[in-house]
Amino acid sequence: MTYAVGMRLNRGLVFMSDTRTNAGVDNVSTFNKMFNWTVEGDRSITLLSAGNLATTQATISLLEERTKAPEDRSPSILEAPTMFQVAQLVAATLNDVIEGHSRAGQQADSAFHATLILGGQIKGGPSRLFLIYPEGNFIEAGEDTPFFQIGETKYGRPILVRAFDPDMSFSETVKLLLVSFDSTIKANLSVGAPLDLLLYEEDSLTAGTRSRFEPDDQYFRTISEGWGDALKVALSKLPAYEA
Amino acid sequence: MTYAVGMRLNRGLVFMSDTRTNAGVDNVSTFNKMFNWTVEGDRSITLLSAGNLATTQATISLLEERTKAPEDRSPSILEAPTMFQVAQLVAATLNDVIEGHSRAGQQADSAFHATLILGGQIKGGPSRLFLIYPEGNFIEAGEDTPFFQIGETKYGRPILVRAFDPDMSFSETVKLLLVSFDSTIKANLSVGAPLDLLLYEEDSLTAGTRSRFEPDDQYFRTISEGWGDALKVALSKLPAYEA
Repeated sequence: MTYAVGMRLNRGLVFMSDTRTNAGVDNVSTFNKMFNWTVEGDRSITLLSAGNLATTQATISLLEERTKAPEDRSPSILEAPTMFQVAQLVAATLNDVIEGHSRAGQQADSAFHATLILGGQIKGGPSRLFLIYPEGNFIEAGEDTPFFQIGETKYGRPILVRAFDPDMSFSETVKLLLVSFDSTIKANLSVGAPLDLLLYEEDSLTAGTRSRFEPDDQYFRTISEGWGDALKVALSKLPAYEA
Repeated sequence: MTYAVGMRLNRGLVFMSDTRTNAGVDNVSTFNKMFNWTVEGDRSITLLSAGNLATTQATISLLEERTKAPEDRSPSILEAPTMFQVAQLVAATLNDVIEGHSRAGQQADSAFHATLILGGQIKGGPSRLFLIYPEGNFIEAGEDTPFFQIGETKYGRPILVRAFDPDMSFSETVKLLLVSFDSTIKANLSVGAPLDLLLYEEDSLTAGTRSRFEPDDQYFRTISEGWGDALKVALSKLPAYEA
């Protein structure tokens, strides 16, 4: 399983993903699920993946044209004129990979499905955020649903629903995301640190600021421990029920 | 779907369940999912159900021996000497019902499965709490896992994991449960008020105090609205991330 979130704020895009993959509870590994392609001054594109690891890795490789010799590669996602076209390209590639595996007659408990969050900005347009389904179609984040979650989304959703605000600073957003991820990690073994973070400032057209929270990261631990106490205090302040 | 929780506290048992059932989003009804059998001074037994409504209603009817004329009924759950035997009886009945429906060759998207929470006390023993699976086996709540959830459990779990304390008063427990239910209701259309509550005081051997929170219940609304604000305050008090 996986947990990943992409958010569109007024000041830019924020992405966070865990790095745990598992095939059963005794086959647990750490894999990067966050990918970024940047042409400075022209575009910055970020992809988060959840689902079958072979499918997502094949999709990334195809997008990067790794089937070609390095000098012949000119990935279309670096040339598409709009984020909408990038989304179409990524969705079609994802669907091709899944179809290809399925055509081979393979069957697996967890199918070959994968779901992606795609976000980024191309010069001349605003930043945009998409959720891409394994069927090859996608939806875009609007004013009313300005964030997407993929993977094990339920445990960490209530706090996002309650506290998300498109005016948040990056600092507040990271805090909110860490609380959401911590709730998920505490409840589901298949989601785990390290957590990858990418902050993309609107109109910067750079790769943004990428960082990683290791399980023993001091700030992450402060949030995790502090949140438990903060919840208890919050609860105690609500009026008592007259039994 | 359903959301129901049973808790074993030091001062007794607490049960809460929603009342929404649905077969698709356009076939939504209100049904009681909380059942209590009491022989004053001898025993109090409570059952919460999640899953196929036909299965749970058939199970309840069989436990009450409704196949017999009213004067011939002497439900075994009112005669079993221990809560463990009651659990065995309920589990066997549930499994029989599911097997019976499946043998008929029926197939349905959501199968005929149901999961039950059983709690209660019989004179001479302590109160006990069980989680009964559709397969007809069951587990008992111990010191380390003193509560069970069934149905749509994920959204409301983080707050229970963080704030549950077996020393809680009934008043605090109801508050905690309403927060957990409110998080679930806000995230999943298939869980909805009214919410049923039953408070059973250890060694009372009575039916306990039963009440219902309607969607417009003043206390429920105070908690629901207050919790959103309390979460934002709690979040704002955690240290900021230095981006």
